[in-house]
Amino acid sequence: MVQRFGDKHLGGDFFQTLRFEGGIDDCEVLGEIPSDLHGTFYRLGGDWAYPPKYPHDVPFSADGYISMFRFANGRVNYKGRFVHTPRYLANRKAGGQLFGIYRNRGGDDPSVRGLSSTMSNTTPVIHAGKLFATKEDARPYEIDPHTLETRGEYDFGGKLTSLTFTAHPKIDPETGEMFAFGFEATGEASTDMYLYTIDRSGKITKEVRVQAPYVSENHDMAISKTHVVIPHFPLTTTREWLAASPENLHWYWDERLPGYLLVVPRNGDAKDARWIKGPPHAMGHTLNATTEGSKLILEGTVSNANPYPFFPNRDGSPWTPMTGGATIRRWVIDLDSRSDGWEEQNLFPAQSGGLPRMDDRFITLPYRYAYLGYTDFSRLGPPSSGAPSFPPTNTLGRFDLRSGKSETLFLGDSGSLQEACFAPRNAKAPEGSGYLLGVLSNFAERRSELLVVDAQKMQEVGRVILPFQIAAQVHGAWAPHAQVPFEA
Amino acid sequence: MVQRFGDKHLGGDFFQTLRFEGGIDDCEVLGEIPSDLHGTFYRLGGDWAYPPKYPHDVPFSADGYISMFRFANGRVNYKGRFVHTPRYLANRKAGGQLFGIYRNRGGDDPSVRGLSSTMSNTTPVIHAGKLFATKEDARPYEIDPHTLETRGEYDFGGKLTSLTFTAHPKIDPETGEMFAFGFEATGEASTDMYLYTIDRSGKITKEVRVQAPYVSENHDMAISKTHVVIPHFPLTTTREWLAASPENLHWYWDERLPGYLLVVPRNGDAKDARWIKGPPHAMGHTLNATTEGSKLILEGTVSNANPYPFFPNRDGSPWTPMTGGATIRRWVIDLDSRSDGWEEQNLFPAQSGGLPRMDDRFITLPYRYAYLGYTDFSRLGPPSSGAPSFPPTNTLGRFDLRSGKSETLFLGDSGSLQEACFAPRNAKAPEGSGYLLGVLSNFAERRSELLVVDAQKMQEVGRVILPFQIAAQVHGAWAPHAQVPFEA
Repeated sequence: MVQRFGDKHLGGDFFQTLRFEGGIDDCEVLGEIPSDLHGTFYRLGGDWAYPPKYPHDVPFSADGYISMFRFANGRVNYKGRFVHTPRYLANRKAGGQLFGIYRNRGGDDPSVRGLSSTMSNTTPVIHAGKLFATKEDARPYEIDPHTLETRGEYDFGGKLTSLTFTAHPKIDPETGEMFAFGFEATGEASTDMYLYTIDRSGKITKEVRVQAPYVSENHDMAISKTHVVIPHFPLTTTREWLAASPENLHWYWDERLPGYLLVVPRNGDAKDARWIKGPPHAMGHTLNATTEGSKLILEGTVSNANPYPFFPNRDGSPWTPMTGGATIRRWVIDLDSRSDGWEEQNLFPAQSGGLPRMDDRFITLPYRYAYLGYTDFSRLGPPSSGAPSFPPTNTLGRFDLRSGKSETLFLGDSGSLQEACFAPRNAKAPEGSGYLLGVLSNFAERRSELLVVDAQKMQEVGRVILPFQIAAQVHGAWAPHAQVPFEA
Repeated sequence: MVQRFGDKHLGGDFFQTLRFEGGIDDCEVLGEIPSDLHGTFYRLGGDWAYPPKYPHDVPFSADGYISMFRFANGRVNYKGRFVHTPRYLANRKAGGQLFGIYRNRGGDDPSVRGLSSTMSNTTPVIHAGKLFATKEDARPYEIDPHTLETRGEYDFGGKLTSLTFTAHPKIDPETGEMFAFGFEATGEASTDMYLYTIDRSGKITKEVRVQAPYVSENHDMAISKTHVVIPHFPLTTTREWLAASPENLHWYWDERLPGYLLVVPRNGDAKDARWIKGPPHAMGHTLNATTEGSKLILEGTVSNANPYPFFPNRDGSPWTPMTGGATIRRWVIDLDSRSDGWEEQNLFPAQSGGLPRMDDRFITLPYRYAYLGYTDFSRLGPPSSGAPSFPPTNTLGRFDLRSGKSETLFLGDSGSLQEACFAPRNAKAPEGSGYLLGVLSNFAERRSELLVVDAQKMQEVGRVILPFQIAAQVHGAWAPHAQVPFEA
């Protein structure tokens, strides 16, 4: 049953596969790597260990691949490894793809019945001295922060009763607490959601169980000083949909359903949870939440409808950027009111991108800057050889949420930028004093380049050159040396 | 003093650098890998950890890089690592190139005075259960045959008194003895040559010390059942030449000098050594030697003059393929005669290549087949994008040394083949029953592909696809599973 890649899986595609495990010491650099950049930039994404069974499967089905760029004294080491999930190991043993289409077990080989099917390919999370690979369909996998070897599934000493764990937990920078949750917490297409508080030592101290009005891809969450808030939108699934065909992807967009915000006080319980009904807009990723008096203010990137071109719409309508493109918006929730709805402000309607980041030291706190890669259509050049057909992320922006102004850095025509993460210059630096780290897929040269951008001047200071194109990350995380120390 | 690569060191050049250490499990395959191919194909070559100090430095100065393709049950794993020589480690610590031009210490940074400067980048040698990286300017480095980690310099338990060790020792397949030697054995530009016999358990049992008429790049050797024979040709050096300028490469061709063959009986001593004078032809690589009555018959690839375009001619004349191109020739030496000279037969004058191989199980024994990659100029297509300017090795030939006939496999226009090694189908298979393994640099796709060719039919059966272009090997070695066992 050995399955092989065709030529289409190699070469310059954005979702190309590389499959190598190993590293490069003292990477080639153009420009200069600042010596105050001292720590590790972890990245998690997908790389296909074996090609998918179904040609229309989605990039999210690719096996988790954890990588890191380690910075010290102006030098950089790179390393990457597959997350050795049960799925990866079973496929490796078989020499081919045993698992069906994205999160539908109907197409699985009978030999893997009962085995976890997670690819653990979404976000690297660092908390209480541990590194985790996370994906919303399963529990985290603990990863050795130096070798990147997979230590195994992690259940917080048996305290994590949810079968799933969000890829976007949030850490309060003042208390060190991590807030997290699982949706489909008791099984596929279940409406159970379990919310967790985890103290700074990594111990689960609280669990709140709620019932969702329907199953939603609750991809992200936010915390303010007083509340946990989870966007809920009609990218949905049901047991019937999954059973109807092994070719049905897990998610579809049901335009008939309303949107919700789940709001739970940090010191509250299930009885205090509110499901606020609103328009079916999708806040795919949050930036931050703050509580100001009786207002809960939530910012993130929001699309009016289905954010994903590759998940179908129930009504058969095609995906378009007009309804699926996300922009940075502010949602203002009245905590005193018992009525539905919230106020939406579209802050930067001309720049569309779905992977916003901030200076994470300001989570829950007043803050000013959002960072977002997007396509500046006015500057698109002719397509490069080997470039994929969708428009490249050719611009990185810093968006001032107070003034409404933005500064941008145009990245040229040669490639497409992945999510850029913020790394502060040092622990005490003011908000936004530091660097943006983002990997550019340089299609023309068929290689990947890590850009180091001064986040105040919005100017590139250095670029780490890899000799090949690595698989695209989904999300990244910066661990300062003090948080994850290593030998230089 | 950090030095960086320019763009020219990345991309599609034959001598490109990749610098990654790691591997790919269950590599992508086109066609089928035969299940009787069970063992490890080791490769050694150079990959620049840091760019050279002098732009006209030669590929032979690149850091040793050992790699392997491991075959079992029709699947293939790839792995590669730098040889961690003292030079590599010193450069890594400094973050740049501390060493001067090819084998001239005059350009070294003072901090590395007294440190070995070998790159250990020529041939993987397997003997007595050990794997070595070898280069003629130093002792072997022992390599872990599974992890490819460098264990360190190897001196055969202190018995190797020569400071150097050939990259082309020969193993008698019947006795298991390894025959080796060092030239420049007592130091740079010395005329001391030490010859060794090493028993099947890896113990040095004999040393013979001789004086060379001048320093020659004695690159290869051969053994028959009765004699050791070492070609000696006027690619030479002197202490004065090396001291004259730090920009002088170690070797130059002195057209005024004669050639020699050093012939020593296997059971003889220094007093039995003969230096037979002849034309200054260079047998850069040997195939085999056999003793037939009073004749010693030696075959290999021979050029009429300087075989290397990048080492200078003393008289300033430019290198040309007419004098530097090598062809398979037979040299017949009369062991009964005391006079100089030998008979030269140019067996396949139309096919020029310098990296011949044979079925090594027939070293010292009557044999029939030589394998050689060469350029078929009549079939050269237009140059591929990213291809180097020298003509690609586009054809692999099997040359029947008895009949004078040859069978060839044309490899197309997309790349250039490195040395192809023979792997027998099994230990008892007749001569030539097995596979040729050779890595093709596919410039068009910017990747490397290992070709598996049926050595009898001279037809490709399978091809291992790597996602990137690995550094070119110099030489390779096949270790059947019985010789280097591993877990599948």
